Amino acid sequence: MRVFGIPLPHLAATLLAGVLVGSIVVGVTIDRGGAEGAVESPYARPYPIPHRYWAETDEMYVFASGGQQGGFYVYGLPSMKMVAEIPMFTVDQAWGWRTEDPKVREMLTNPWTGELATVGDTHHASMSKTDAVYDGRWVFINDKIYGRVGRVDLDTFRTEQILWIPNITGGVHGFNVGPNTDVAMLNIEFEQLPEFADQISARGVDIDLLEGPYLGGFAGIDIADDGTMSNAFQVWSPWQQDMVRIGWGESEGWVVNTVYNSERATGTVGMFEREDDYVFFWRQQSITDAIDSGNYITSEQAPDVPVIPWDDVEVYAAKVPLNPHGIDVSPTGRYMFVGGKATSIVTAIDFEKVLQAIEEERFEGEEFGVPILETEFVRAATMDLGLGPTHIDFDDKGMAYIGFFVDSDVKTVPLGGSYTDLHGKEPWKVSEVIPVHYSVGHLMVAGGDMAEPYGKYLISMNKLAKDSFIPHGPLIAENHELFDISGNKTLMIDQAPFPPETHYSQAIPVDMINPIDVYPLADEEIETGVTYDYDDKVVNVTMTAVRSWFTPASFTVPEGWTVKMEVTNVEQVMDITHGIAVTGHDVSLSLDPGQTRMVEFNAGAPGVYWYYCIWFCSELHLEMRGRMIVIAEDEWSPDKEWQPPE
Amino acid sequence: MRVFGIPLPHLAATLLAGVLVGSIVVGVTIDRGGAEGAVESPYARPYPIPHRYWAETDEMYVFASGGQQGGFYVYGLPSMKMVAEIPMFTVDQAWGWRTEDPKVREMLTNPWTGELATVGDTHHASMSKTDAVYDGRWVFINDKIYGRVGRVDLDTFRTEQILWIPNITGGVHGFNVGPNTDVAMLNIEFEQLPEFADQISARGVDIDLLEGPYLGGFAGIDIADDGTMSNAFQVWSPWQQDMVRIGWGESEGWVVNTVYNSERATGTVGMFEREDDYVFFWRQQSITDAIDSGNYITSEQAPDVPVIPWDDVEVYAAKVPLNPHGIDVSPTGRYMFVGGKATSIVTAIDFEKVLQAIEEERFEGEEFGVPILETEFVRAATMDLGLGPTHIDFDDKGMAYIGFFVDSDVKTVPLGGSYTDLHGKEPWKVSEVIPVHYSVGHLMVAGGDMAEPYGKYLISMNKLAKDSFIPHGPLIAENHELFDISGNKTLMIDQAPFPPETHYSQAIPVDMINPIDVYPLADEEIETGVTYDYDDKVVNVTMTAVRSWFTPASFTVPEGWTVKMEVTNVEQVMDITHGIAVTGHDVSLSLDPGQTRMVEFNAGAPGVYWYYCIWFCSELHLEMRGRMIVIAEDEWSPDKEWQPPE
Repeated sequence: MRVFGIPLPHLAATLLAGVLVGSIVVGVTIDRGGAEGAVESPYARPYPIPHRYWAETDEMYVFASGGQQGGFYVYGLPSMKMVAEIPMFTVDQAWGWRTEDPKVREMLTNPWTGELATVGDTHHASMSKTDAVYDGRWVFINDKIYGRVGRVDLDTFRTEQILWIPNITGGVHGFNVGPNTDVAMLNIEFEQLPEFADQISARGVDIDLLEGPYLGGFAGIDIADDGTMSNAFQVWSPWQQDMVRIGWGESEGWVVNTVYNSERATGTVGMFEREDDYVFFWRQQSITDAIDSGNYITSEQAPDVPVIPWDDVEVYAAKVPLNPHGIDVSPTGRYMFVGGKATSIVTAIDFEKVLQAIEEERFEGEEFGVPILETEFVRAATMDLGLGPTHIDFDDKGMAYIGFFVDSDVKTVPLGGSYTDLHGKEPWKVSEVIPVHYSVGHLMVAGGDMAEPYGKYLISMNKLAKDSFIPHGPLIAENHELFDISGNKTLMIDQAPFPPETHYSQAIPVDMINPIDVYPLADEEIETGVTYDYDDKVVNVTMTAVRSWFTPASFTVPEGWTVKMEVTNVEQVMDITHGIAVTGHDVSLSLDPGQTRMVEFNAGAPGVYWYYCIWFCSELHLEMRGRMIVIAEDEWSPDKEWQPPE
Repeated sequence: MRVFGIPLPHLAATLLAGVLVGSIVVGVTIDRGGAEGAVESPYARPYPIPHRYWAETDEMYVFASGGQQGGFYVYGLPSMKMVAEIPMFTVDQAWGWRTEDPKVREMLTNPWTGELATVGDTHHASMSKTDAVYDGRWVFINDKIYGRVGRVDLDTFRTEQILWIPNITGGVHGFNVGPNTDVAMLNIEFEQLPEFADQISARGVDIDLLEGPYLGGFAGIDIADDGTMSNAFQVWSPWQQDMVRIGWGESEGWVVNTVYNSERATGTVGMFEREDDYVFFWRQQSITDAIDSGNYITSEQAPDVPVIPWDDVEVYAAKVPLNPHGIDVSPTGRYMFVGGKATSIVTAIDFEKVLQAIEEERFEGEEFGVPILETEFVRAATMDLGLGPTHIDFDDKGMAYIGFFVDSDVKTVPLGGSYTDLHGKEPWKVSEVIPVHYSVGHLMVAGGDMAEPYGKYLISMNKLAKDSFIPHGPLIAENHELFDISGNKTLMIDQAPFPPETHYSQAIPVDMINPIDVYPLADEEIETGVTYDYDDKVVNVTMTAVRSWFTPASFTVPEGWTVKMEVTNVEQVMDITHGIAVTGHDVSLSLDPGQTRMVEFNAGAPGVYWYYCIWFCSELHLEMRGRMIVIAEDEWSPDKEWQPPE
């Protein structure tokens, strides 16, 4: 197999050296014009702009994974204006997410080691769905650095749960929620050496601490009706697993994932040795059967989580080009697109043919006992499209949108089968080339990863923005480019810089989400005050915040004691947020209207410390402050305790 | 004095109860139209939009203080597109600012207690200037929670220094850099009880640990030619000090600041007892003289920083209405605007008259020995303009722009004196009322706080956005509104949501800033490798990152040892950022092209941990990963040490 006339090993070597990538990216010609093909704009904005223009014209939310931001960015379409960040795996003072709140601290603490983990790398946003269509309840996402998955409640735009995955030290990549939000799968990309490695090794799998190789697989997560996630099972195998999708429609009951390191190498170069890697097809029922029959092992760390070796479940492989990444499924669940990152080849696997090949045992080999389906038989198309295919999304008209990192473009390809009724074009041929600036990493068509895509908008999330915006130092923002794909020609609506670093994103119509404005207050009145626990050396403070004061407005505490404050913002008015920072104590938390939060910290050294509202909550917000008076241990006596006002 | 027919004490009480603030804000009528006064738009954008449209049309940078974000937001004008965040006082994984980098950790560590302070509340951006005009070298800002000031280098868009201020526990508000960037002043807003309180008390100032009152003042900071800040002196007084400006032009040699709590109260209500508070005028030379003559005290904490009691320097007061906040100086340095936050009154003090009053000893009283200048004599105007005046900025045509939090509008007032030549209007009367949505906290006219305002753009930074954008949960973004002020009527160009929570911001032309794209590499080649220090149990790793691997690609370390990695991104290509996350170790740092950073962490428990590039740096970035193999202490032997490749 040759790509662009270059024998594959040479191409891979060139890509590896970074030369080709660098030169192509830098060499892109910049079009400074823009008049070409200009049309009457439905996206012009009036001048002067009326108040609430964007509130009334935005049609969709984008929930963009934050990458090393560790949560979500949320923006509107077509305005591209960022309305929120949702912190999850990192601490974030701006959006009120810090570990002096014990609820946050608990979520960020490794349940097995007790260590706090405040870094995150969120990759694959996955909306809750009903019958494979977004339903607007929650959005889930994974942290690649640690093995964690978080859930955001779309009523509050807040992280409500973080689930830690046992048996792994991190390095999880693909993540996907099932078509009815009762299950999710998380892929182990970075090979691991779990405590039960010997039991896998005993099945003929080589493993070595110093030299490698190690093991991979995926974790299954149960999702309850209220959104609560729990560890359900794990499937371990000789290989890492990269991206994952849980099938629906024509692929219902199957989990598919890609393996780019079928070589089981531990170094970068070794991962490119084979010309082909794999996509795997796992029958979900076979996992359930293994669990039901007790045919599994467990770990000391998580004795309740069944661990099933790959050869005890039903799994098939198909070959795909050198180092695949995305595995993306067409709206009816039939076609599965896999590109070879280090090639120019994109394959469309026909799941109807996969089922037929399994039925008819059309195998062309096996590895570690996994049958390899006949390559040509299961493919609907093998397309030579351009350098560096990564991710693929789908619109409502039977078109696939494929991002090319090296070519810096998005190419559209009409789907075959019943999809041809939607577009009437010749399938599996490039229909349009959309230049992007530069190096698309991920892309998103609105609703493009589920059964009923919304279409209309395409966003290319370009990893290299370079000179797209005014200079801002060596660390350059991402470039999100928004296109209208509803007409005959794809036109760019806007370019917008975004903070580091979005991976997959999802869009959902504005009217599907109705977040609350305030947290309702409990009926009983809050009894503010201070109590002293001399046994545990704890001061418990029950406090309220309202424009423009805290109650109590001051309290005393002996030096070195623990201060536990339960603070309620008793406002019930939209947007009247308060907050509490304590000078000299590394404490600063936000309090939404009606919200109660705990704040824990050590009183520290003697002195006068002010707590104050960090939000410009009213004209008198500067005066919204109170005193914590820390008294030296040898000067303390109970008559210095806080007293209720007379 | 009555405001809107309400006797002041009643007004204050109403404001304090939050009723008036709440009802006025909520009751604002929303104009859903927009056709009114529509004109041909210079701000329409083409469709399709050409690549680099915003890079080529943005005229200015805005450096917006981040509030509880703890650093800066940076966006373009008129695009309002945010190109960068600059972390400073908080940790921020997205923008590469975490404490596993010992340089960051040192900046965030209290030099006197050794405690790490990772919260910040940045308020008053202050650009470097030459002859009272921005010069594009640095931007400085203060942290209100702790007493800290940071400096950003505009070549790198990075925080290069954080200066801790001694003798205080936090609560500093006003901050201003002098007209030639050799000095800055930082105001102590929250009253303190410093170790030398008794020496101040001995001058007839009451102080009490439990009941208050305490002391306030301001800190002077020296700024060297290379931007390095150092603590120069402190002036302590019976009062807190809120906002501050260092004079220039007609007020050169003087420092002015506001005091809203002249009552010296410790509770919110007490701070509103007096109908008038103060603005203070400090002669800078008198501070220098006190230092030169050795007429000062010092603290044990900072024996090198002279502390000067207020009555040993030359200072005068003038009365201003109930609880002033901003003190804003007109471009020639002559008029000083001070509004009473809890009133409808804005006063313009004529500094020419201040000097005359001092010369002629026109005093109407004194407090703690500070002469109070004749109120009516020093005022150019006393204007009844609207509820809740806060901040004021100036344009290039002799106009003042005054924000009203409660009225939710910006009012323009033509200046008198020689400024009338610029506008030809009747001075000191409202010229235009600009509605904003809602509750303007701060506002900014481009260049509006220095000698040569750029004008053209006004930004109203509205603290309550409420329903301005699509709903996004109980925590609502800020609403920045951009206006064109170059014509006869002020027109709104755009509304944009911004993350919490901008305070003062500054704008500077794009062509004044030329940040670097890459850090140049040192001439000598980097010798990658690993050394083992058995005495201190430290593994020292010298590592490089390049597309698409780390060198070394793996290393071993005994369990529990300290790992010190010096990692260099050896790329010299714009936007090729790498990063390093270590699974299971709470480590994730960004590496700009050419940048070298240290990373320190504990190796922890035995196992295989992957380090990987967190940036989608090339098509092969997934494979850019290496292994840290942590070996149990009892299994370690020197033959397991990393070995250079043969």
